[in-house]
Amino acid sequence: MGADGDLYRYEAVERHVLDMIKAGEIGRGARIPSLRSMGSRLGVSISTVNQAYMELERRGVVEARPKSGFYVRDDYRSASCSVPEPAKCCGEPVDVNRTALIHQVLGTFARTDLAPLGVAQVQEEMLPVKTLGRLMSRVVSRDPLAATRYEVVSGDEGLRRQIALRMAALGAPARPERMIITVGAMEALYIALRSVTRPGDNVVIASPSYYCFLQLLENIGLRAIEIPSRPGVGVDPDDLERVVAKFNVKACILNTNFNNPDGALIPDENKEKIVGILARKGAPLIEDDVYGDLWFGRLRPKTCKTFDKKGLVMYCSSFSKTLCPGYRVGWIEPGAFFREAFEIKATTTVASSTPAQLTVAEYLREDRYDRHLRTLRSPLSRQAGMMAEEVVRYFPDGVRVTRPAGGVVLWVKLPGGADAGALFYEARKNGVSVAPGNIFSTRDRYGNFLRLCFGLPWSEDVEDAVKMLGDIAWRLVGA
Amino acid sequence: MGADGDLYRYEAVERHVLDMIKAGEIGRGARIPSLRSMGSRLGVSISTVNQAYMELERRGVVEARPKSGFYVRDDYRSASCSVPEPAKCCGEPVDVNRTALIHQVLGTFARTDLAPLGVAQVQEEMLPVKTLGRLMSRVVSRDPLAATRYEVVSGDEGLRRQIALRMAALGAPARPERMIITVGAMEALYIALRSVTRPGDNVVIASPSYYCFLQLLENIGLRAIEIPSRPGVGVDPDDLERVVAKFNVKACILNTNFNNPDGALIPDENKEKIVGILARKGAPLIEDDVYGDLWFGRLRPKTCKTFDKKGLVMYCSSFSKTLCPGYRVGWIEPGAFFREAFEIKATTTVASSTPAQLTVAEYLREDRYDRHLRTLRSPLSRQAGMMAEEVVRYFPDGVRVTRPAGGVVLWVKLPGGADAGALFYEARKNGVSVAPGNIFSTRDRYGNFLRLCFGLPWSEDVEDAVKMLGDIAWRLVGA
Repeated sequence: MGADGDLYRYEAVERHVLDMIKAGEIGRGARIPSLRSMGSRLGVSISTVNQAYMELERRGVVEARPKSGFYVRDDYRSASCSVPEPAKCCGEPVDVNRTALIHQVLGTFARTDLAPLGVAQVQEEMLPVKTLGRLMSRVVSRDPLAATRYEVVSGDEGLRRQIALRMAALGAPARPERMIITVGAMEALYIALRSVTRPGDNVVIASPSYYCFLQLLENIGLRAIEIPSRPGVGVDPDDLERVVAKFNVKACILNTNFNNPDGALIPDENKEKIVGILARKGAPLIEDDVYGDLWFGRLRPKTCKTFDKKGLVMYCSSFSKTLCPGYRVGWIEPGAFFREAFEIKATTTVASSTPAQLTVAEYLREDRYDRHLRTLRSPLSRQAGMMAEEVVRYFPDGVRVTRPAGGVVLWVKLPGGADAGALFYEARKNGVSVAPGNIFSTRDRYGNFLRLCFGLPWSEDVEDAVKMLGDIAWRLVGA
Repeated sequence: MGADGDLYRYEAVERHVLDMIKAGEIGRGARIPSLRSMGSRLGVSISTVNQAYMELERRGVVEARPKSGFYVRDDYRSASCSVPEPAKCCGEPVDVNRTALIHQVLGTFARTDLAPLGVAQVQEEMLPVKTLGRLMSRVVSRDPLAATRYEVVSGDEGLRRQIALRMAALGAPARPERMIITVGAMEALYIALRSVTRPGDNVVIASPSYYCFLQLLENIGLRAIEIPSRPGVGVDPDDLERVVAKFNVKACILNTNFNNPDGALIPDENKEKIVGILARKGAPLIEDDVYGDLWFGRLRPKTCKTFDKKGLVMYCSSFSKTLCPGYRVGWIEPGAFFREAFEIKATTTVASSTPAQLTVAEYLREDRYDRHLRTLRSPLSRQAGMMAEEVVRYFPDGVRVTRPAGGVVLWVKLPGGADAGALFYEARKNGVSVAPGNIFSTRDRYGNFLRLCFGLPWSEDVEDAVKMLGDIAWRLVGA
């Protein structure tokens, strides 16, 4: 806890300085407050302030001048926090066909020769892979028979009990016997959509949305109605109200906490409104909360499930973004649609892989998960800030970048209508993967947007990759 | 190899005696040939014959009379090898709705308090669970990062290479880059059907068929056209010819080797004909070969994939029936439909669990699989024979039971129209799970059939379970 506290204080100092610069209280070339005065202003030790200043120096925000102090660099430009003008509401339902482009992009994600700024996950270097390996060895040697046996369709009961405890702590109590362990959150979303829709049905999604939502809709033959996700706060309940009044909406699928790609966090009061609007129409909400545990603030954001009184929220999540991507362990708490969901699981994949389930259950039982999340969130938060600063520093003037309160991605708007698709191809040639904005909507709405992942340990390579992307963007703007 | 050879010889003697009894060459109460004369007749040692006779005595076929020799027991009734009168060909396409019944049956499979005669798998006691556990520990500790990482959509390349080698040995060469690792064969079948059909399409299946085929069709909204599976040889190519001439058939899905539940083995020349008939119509064949490695004869049967010239055979299999049920590792070689199949995998479960894939790859790389299969087939073959004999012994007169040449199940026809559904419920009360025949067809065609699993080590418990089923059947016939 001590380390966590120190980390928080040191980051607070950093943020305070950045805020002062952003607000114009300290201009370029100006001296920032001395270690001592900043320390007493914020009630922290001089060494904490020193740590923050050195970090700011490393990130190119300030420079140390011998025997004088720290000064804002002349070439420093503050990161803008603004994101897209929201797309026009309300779009008509459209068939989904994003597959070809998405594939080219996905093709780059698997390549280990590229710096992986295109993915949306925490890199394995930040995950407790050795501990997991040790626990897996333990569970398979303790009971080799159980580890080889088919799990029941719903999945390992011990794992479901552990997840139920976590959901209860979130204010979304769930019974283990009403949950199903899935092959990652993706199968959970698939099961949810299949449980409550038929081909041709209308489904409301945010714009921009995780491209896998679009792939799923296309796969199942559903029609998407997009409503804009606004900077910071996500979809507007009023927009949702309008589309459910106008169209026959069969479901709504939302990344409620730290929407992929724009990082939007739907405020808890809006979550409650959204649940209410859909409940009045009897339409299920499919809630994808895979990033919810990666918050940077003081408290974990709530979920829509917390406000679900009628069992219409189908809660989907996984351990893929936070713990063990390759294990493929996710889950669904499908509310009133348990029977339908169970049926689909039983007839598609039957059961999830047993050793992976047992290992995650063991990990949770040993109370390791919250500790791991704590050690994960601090660097993630720092990496988010650093990457945003780098983007502002290296990209052409007018670039805009989100400052998400959680998750693993930044959403970047290129200036001057530069084409993110062209940047994607250029970057690929140069050894960096990125996710171009167009894959996050049914229409070509985000052609000048990029999604960048900050879920990898900060290094010169990462910095070089961002710089290289900036160079390409400069060329594109110049062209 | 020596042990295998002996085993074979000793079983051959057993079979020879049973055949003589069945053919009426030795009647009840009659003496069977002496050890010496049988030994010289079959060219085996006296001790081999002795071993066979003792086995026959243990199974209640013969009895030893002091200083006289072995005699066929007066109460011994020979197992009939005949199975159902094939269902009427050709059925009209029908919507599938077997779910409710299947669920009650599946509910019993997961119960560890029931003797598992209802499943269709080799019990874990017969599987190399300790070796697998050791290999899993090894792969996760050797490279914890790789074991935690997402696999590519197609699955671990090393595993695909190993599978490709096995398929080549089968005469069905396949390129690793054209294969996809799936969550068991079930996901492979799901992917195959989704790749080539749309809801409402007609799909040809055998009658009886694995109930999961029926669940899949129902799940996807497909219509089933059933053609009869004949005792021993499976579907008749002429029947297939007739239905593809009459209906717009979009695909055919068959368990080509040791059909679940009737154990039928489609002769290789019929496999070739089936591939040809479908190819002329351009209709894909979805081949499920999960039991193909569990043959009891001298050679592994071929697959339809062997005869596939146009890439219209979508080959599906897994390691769930032979090695590691709970790992959920299967695969599909989708022929010409790779792109469609890849798309569905990517948008449903994304990738299969990494540690399970790496472990199976390691197991195959060490050349353990064929050795394991060899040690598995002999006892399975013996258990098949023993269970069939027990059924004949304990069930009412007129019972019929298959003598499959591979796989893990017997298909039993109750005499006098006894209701297998009633038997299922009665057996469940008495601690034994069985699979009643009705779940293997879209219509109530097999109400007096049972599927029994012989994939568990022979024991008094198993014998008692069969005896108990027989007692129930007697009561049902008497009622």
